[in-house]
Amino acid sequence: MNYIGLDKLILEALAEDLGTGDITTESCIPEDAVSTGQFRAKMDGVFCGMAVLERVFKLVDERITVTALVKDGDEVKKGDTIASVTGPSRSVLCGERVALNLVQHMSGIATATRRAVKAVEGTGCIIVDTRKMTPGLRVLEKYAVKAGGGRNHRFNLADGVLIKDNHIVAAGGVAEAISAVRANAPHTLKVEIECETEDQVRKALAAGADIIMLDNMSVEDMRKCVRLIDRRALTEASGNMGERDLREVAETGVDLISIGALTHSVQALDISLKFTK
Amino acid sequence: MNYIGLDKLILEALAEDLGTGDITTESCIPEDAVSTGQFRAKMDGVFCGMAVLERVFKLVDERITVTALVKDGDEVKKGDTIASVTGPSRSVLCGERVALNLVQHMSGIATATRRAVKAVEGTGCIIVDTRKMTPGLRVLEKYAVKAGGGRNHRFNLADGVLIKDNHIVAAGGVAEAISAVRANAPHTLKVEIECETEDQVRKALAAGADIIMLDNMSVEDMRKCVRLIDRRALTEASGNMGERDLREVAETGVDLISIGALTHSVQALDISLKFTK
Amino acid sequence: MNYIGLDKLILEALAEDLGTGDITTESCIPEDAVSTGQFRAKMDGVFCGMAVLERVFKLVDERITVTALVKDGDEVKKGDTIASVTGPSRSVLCGERVALNLVQHMSGIATATRRAVKAVEGTGCIIVDTRKMTPGLRVLEKYAVKAGGGRNHRFNLADGVLIKDNHIVAAGGVAEAISAVRANAPHTLKVEIECETEDQVRKALAAGADIIMLDNMSVEDMRKCVRLIDRRALTEASGNMGERDLREVAETGVDLISIGALTHSVQALDISLKFTK
Amino acid sequence: MNYIGLDKLILEALAEDLGTGDITTESCIPEDAVSTGQFRAKMDGVFCGMAVLERVFKLVDERITVTALVKDGDEVKKGDTIASVTGPSRSVLCGERVALNLVQHMSGIATATRRAVKAVEGTGCIIVDTRKMTPGLRVLEKYAVKAGGGRNHRFNLADGVLIKDNHIVAAGGVAEAISAVRANAPHTLKVEIECETEDQVRKALAAGADIIMLDNMSVEDMRKCVRLIDRRALTEASGNMGERDLREVAETGVDLISIGALTHSVQALDISLKFTK
Amino acid sequence: MNYIGLDKLILEALAEDLGTGDITTESCIPEDAVSTGQFRAKMDGVFCGMAVLERVFKLVDERITVTALVKDGDEVKKGDTIASVTGPSRSVLCGERVALNLVQHMSGIATATRRAVKAVEGTGCIIVDTRKMTPGLRVLEKYAVKAGGGRNHRFNLADGVLIKDNHIVAAGGVAEAISAVRANAPHTLKVEIECETEDQVRKALAAGADIIMLDNMSVEDMRKCVRLIDRRALTEASGNMGERDLREVAETGVDLISIGALTHSVQALDISLKFTK
Amino acid sequence: MNYIGLDKLILEALAEDLGTGDITTESCIPEDAVSTGQFRAKMDGVFCGMAVLERVFKLVDERITVTALVKDGDEVKKGDTIASVTGPSRSVLCGERVALNLVQHMSGIATATRRAVKAVEGTGCIIVDTRKMTPGLRVLEKYAVKAGGGRNHRFNLADGVLIKDNHIVAAGGVAEAISAVRANAPHTLKVEIECETEDQVRKALAAGADIIMLDNMSVEDMRKCVRLIDRRALTEASGNMGERDLREVAETGVDLISIGALTHSVQALDISLKFTK
Repeated sequence: MNYIGLDKLILEALAEDLGTGDITTESCIPEDAVSTGQFRAKMDGVFCGMAVLERVFKLVDERITVTALVKDGDEVKKGDTIASVTGPSRSVLCGERVALNLVQHMSGIATATRRAVKAVEGTGCIIVDTRKMTPGLRVLEKYAVKAGGGRNHRFNLADGVLIKDNHIVAAGGVAEAISAVRANAPHTLKVEIECETEDQVRKALAAGADIIMLDNMSVEDMRKCVRLIDRRALTEASGNMGERDLREVAETGVDLISIGALTHSVQALDISLKFTK
Repeated sequence: MNYIGLDKLILEALAEDLGTGDITTESCIPEDAVSTGQFRAKMDGVFCGMAVLERVFKLVDERITVTALVKDGDEVKKGDTIASVTGPSRSVLCGERVALNLVQHMSGIATATRRAVKAVEGTGCIIVDTRKMTPGLRVLEKYAVKAGGGRNHRFNLADGVLIKDNHIVAAGGVAEAISAVRANAPHTLKVEIECETEDQVRKALAAGADIIMLDNMSVEDMRKCVRLIDRRALTEASGNMGERDLREVAETGVDLISIGALTHSVQALDISLKFTK
Repeated sequence: MNYIGLDKLILEALAEDLGTGDITTESCIPEDAVSTGQFRAKMDGVFCGMAVLERVFKLVDERITVTALVKDGDEVKKGDTIASVTGPSRSVLCGERVALNLVQHMSGIATATRRAVKAVEGTGCIIVDTRKMTPGLRVLEKYAVKAGGGRNHRFNLADGVLIKDNHIVAAGGVAEAISAVRANAPHTLKVEIECETEDQVRKALAAGADIIMLDNMSVEDMRKCVRLIDRRALTEASGNMGERDLREVAETGVDLISIGALTHSVQALDISLKFTK
Repeated sequence: MNYIGLDKLILEALAEDLGTGDITTESCIPEDAVSTGQFRAKMDGVFCGMAVLERVFKLVDERITVTALVKDGDEVKKGDTIASVTGPSRSVLCGERVALNLVQHMSGIATATRRAVKAVEGTGCIIVDTRKMTPGLRVLEKYAVKAGGGRNHRFNLADGVLIKDNHIVAAGGVAEAISAVRANAPHTLKVEIECETEDQVRKALAAGADIIMLDNMSVEDMRKCVRLIDRRALTEASGNMGERDLREVAETGVDLISIGALTHSVQALDISLKFTK
Repeated sequence: MNYIGLDKLILEALAEDLGTGDITTESCIPEDAVSTGQFRAKMDGVFCGMAVLERVFKLVDERITVTALVKDGDEVKKGDTIASVTGPSRSVLCGERVALNLVQHMSGIATATRRAVKAVEGTGCIIVDTRKMTPGLRVLEKYAVKAGGGRNHRFNLADGVLIKDNHIVAAGGVAEAISAVRANAPHTLKVEIECETEDQVRKALAAGADIIMLDNMSVEDMRKCVRLIDRRALTEASGNMGERDLREVAETGVDLISIGALTHSVQALDISLKFTK
Repeated sequence: MNYIGLDKLILEALAEDLGTGDITTESCIPEDAVSTGQFRAKMDGVFCGMAVLERVFKLVDERITVTALVKDGDEVKKGDTIASVTGPSRSVLCGERVALNLVQHMSGIATATRRAVKAVEGTGCIIVDTRKMTPGLRVLEKYAVKAGGGRNHRFNLADGVLIKDNHIVAAGGVAEAISAVRANAPHTLKVEIECETEDQVRKALAAGADIIMLDNMSVEDMRKCVRLIDRRALTEASGNMGERDLREVAETGVDLISIGALTHSVQALDISLKFTK
């Protein structure tokens, strides 16, 4: 994880959740009370976000100590203790919700990614994410995909070329779009293009695309296009992959499958904090 | 929606998604190209976020015009056109993903809320949200819950009192916690307490709680507690309500049901943008 | 005090006062000079702001040590030493003015609040603040009111309901305003309304207001209204209370008196820093 | 006034006062209601801050119009209308408190400054401010002093040299301090030094000070020092000037009197907003 | 140019240059004075930055109008008028220096780039920039390189892979570094590696590098390596190219030459603003 | 150097250079690798920026240690080691470019300033900078000028008065401009005016200017004006001084020479970092 920027994100999340102060806690818990509690998984899944958990509490109060019992990418079972926390009770309660909101979300992504990775195990196919992410959380979400065993697609519009349907319309065709990108984009980037038909694939190949996205195709068509491309470009299956049979897709021979649902439709991994003293 | 703050959120989301510029679009689409496109629902649900959609494009380029065809809270069917957009092609593409990421998320929340509200229709029970929200997006998520027909619980730790299990442990008991809060919190706030047993409910009532949360109780126990409380306090059912039979819960007579899953496990409403010229 | 946010406030105050650097100090005091000085009260009052004093110097230079000799809420006499400070001379001088500007202001508020609290001592009446505060300093000002022995009213427009004269005009009447708020505001907030006449008080009671503000009333009228309300709602006296005989007001039986002058017309408590070596 | 920066200050003040939204107003006033109101002085004084008043409402809602009836520096009587405002009721109420908090504070400063300026009228003596200001509001406070008829001292530690008692201690003497500053500070700045005794004044003169502050001196001593200095340097009277007989001080012949109380102990000028429709 | 972010840069530059206000201008020029002036080149070169020039004045005061007489990338001669500006005199003077500081710098870069591009004209070799840029100005500097006729290398560490000497040391060798990057970096990025010897070039080729940087090589060695690589990878000459004979380098057949001096050692293009009324 | 603000500048520079993470380094260097390297001068010059170098690495990773071998203002020869650095390899590489971009720029300024200072050695003439600086870096550039042996002119428009040609045009003449400034600017600032002719110099003297800038004059004319002024004001030579014979200018007897080229046309001092293990 790229930590520069993480503190800002956490401090803003704390400000959002704290408002002008935790009125309940400050009213009923003495300033010098100290508590210890455990974070426990309340369902099975893949944990992700220990550094975030630790950093939230460190930013709230340097006196809090967090003891990690699992690490990012570990599978946890319902009831497993993930970490324990000790420190001033007020401070622990003040950081609890933000820590859980972030970690449950990241773990949800890691869990879904792991499921996808396992579905294609052995095929050599790689699971990647998309830009269908939660605004403000992209660094954490990209990290969680990797913790789940996936790989990252481009991070943003600047660090990867992807010519999509609307670009093709506006640029006047597949060949026109590819050659314009070749002439203007930095030489350090590969050129990827989204194709919906075999015809587009042929044009993309002819124009020298480095990566061809097979978008919303049937398994049949994908298989045909993979054969047609024949390793002259990387192939990436895409389009509602969250609802497709991933193994079947992987067995068409595509190099990568990109899945938006990994990050746009996250089911949080339920985790709770209980004070034991 | 409280618009002060919205621009900051959108500008940061654009910065995150744009990075140092949209290399694909700038490379293959001429600066003076103009496009028109339609936003279409790709599944059934409740739309939410028109002001966000409009504001994203306005911030990207003042020359873009968005024509809204539905309004927040409207039900949409797969294939319905939600809005159309016209403007410089480069600018439209530059705002597309951020607009969709936000609006699909908000619509997903509105859709889930509407489903819950319908489940309890006619019982008089109110569906409310929780603080289990996505860091950074709370204003939008709270708004989406209302667009779906729900009501909002407290926004943050400062604008509502909620004495939870860990507070009771740290404060030394139900009565102690309530009386400490009464003595210290602003007189403008009601006092809510989370109870897991009938015994706690009795103590909370005796100490004068204004709102009693019935947490993780069976329907049976809830019904008993509602009778016991007998309108002397508001009652709120809580605890994994996303997986419970909401009608059955509502029929216990509770005043409110709070559901974390509305916002911590959002299924995005799929929406696409297609250029027609 | 809610410390998240405090550093930002202090750093901005330092930036404002430092500009591009302390030209005098950097020009005439060697980098390795070390000084010790005392903060002394130059008038009687209630001190408030030790954490701010310490934090200013910590943010300027971690090598500075501050030794506190009084604590927030303590009464100090002219000539009393409040704290001593030791550290690099340049750094101490760089933080001096910002520390004093903040602490003198907070102590001024605590002093005025203490005076008001003493005026109503024994009546059971509570002194509270208002939103007539200095932009940017609300967290500190709210804290100073508590250090002086007062309690806080709502912090901002989001964490308390207060229906004022202009709301009644715009909403079409007392009853209309109250019922609209009941239907829309979170269930966690009490409903307060500002009344200027006995007639409005009757309507507010009938509509179920939780708190009734008696605004700009004579002592006579307040007494009558308190009797009329008869504990069915909390009562709060308001309106130029900074210039009223507070004991007389308190003896009408109102539960609270809110005083804008505590924070909108602050007389700073004079404090100086003198180097002794 | 320097407007760059003003918007940031106002937006932060609005965020502080609004929190997550004006729950009262949004609950009881329809979105399409429009109101007109008048800002009226509730005491005599000097008005200051029309641009701030206008800017607050413009930032809240571009549809609000403010009609100014007085201008900065004008004297107003109790009951005078200062400005009228028309616009969406919700928006007007949302900006009201921030606008008043700022304008009442600025007008309070202008009023106190005008009183001081009048006290020394005809003597040729100039009233100036100090750095004893409210953190975050310095630009507005400096401006208000000028609206009241005063002049500004240095804005911050970077744009003026002022050698104070603690500098003299740390630098090893008056002459040492002055010559060090001469050698290091930009040639564009005059050198001012704070003197508490005639002896220090002699040394300062000998060392070539451009401005000599006569700090906490009796009128007698000031007169003696002014004669001694004999126009070879500017002279500035200082030290609790808020509680001194300013005319008597001015008549010693000093060029300037600096008064911290103008800005550290402000009595707000009471102004109200009443809706008339 | 990517405009999101530009306003922030300009506003910060204005704040830096304005401090608390333009004391000279506000003191000696009336608020209602209006001036017209011309920006003139004081030396020959390539102009760049018209959008910045316009935006600075728009942000200072919306009433200022700028009339552009040249466009980015145009060659200008000493004495040529670049733009004229009309508006409130105070505002024009307030923006002048920031506008010039930015535009002179950008034009300096465009001028140096044009010179390099002309030096290699006809060879097919492309001039690119590096990350040796001025902190805070990278977007503008990258843009100026393109205005001068060059192309951009990667923008930052995230949007391009470049394995440098220190990476090779730390990774344990050329092959190890390349294969590790292949396994971990997004599939959308090409892999570039810096080679200082023919031996490294052979290893890089064998490991499948997409781009090979020939670093600090003699023209002789470069020619040999280009032949060895034989189009199997792109080739980029690098290392003090600011002081080399670029034509000679280009004629070795390298695809690209990257020049740090374009942006780390900029000679500003002198431009002045003179009021004509 | 004024450190408040430095961290913000460095963190923004790191964010700009890092983007979403150093893809190369994270891909090919293990998280636990540790490296040591040397910063070496690759040309002769004056070093400046050790605190910046140290702070960059401290902000990237607290575990990095930097050992300084020279100090700001020291002359270095090609090949000299400036500092060594040890720490986690990934972190060192992550900070390298930002550190070098800043330090090479500052050292370039110090080097040019030293050259100018030496050129006028023995004449008593002082070399000063201007406001022709790089937006965002002014604090560092001003500091570098002092490290090179120069002195600073005003920092920004607020902390010094300088009446320029356009002011004279807009104010209606030399005398008018000076007297308006006298009446309005803080008494702590000297009044400087830019003169292009002997006639203007006479008027400026008559109006009581404190500093007279001799702008774009021949050596002959400067000498005449210096004699004419005869110590009644400070004299400052200005106008393309980067290309003039500084000794000749200094020998006219001017007190100061201001040189824009010191900061607007910086030749970076080449410095490299090489890992030795």
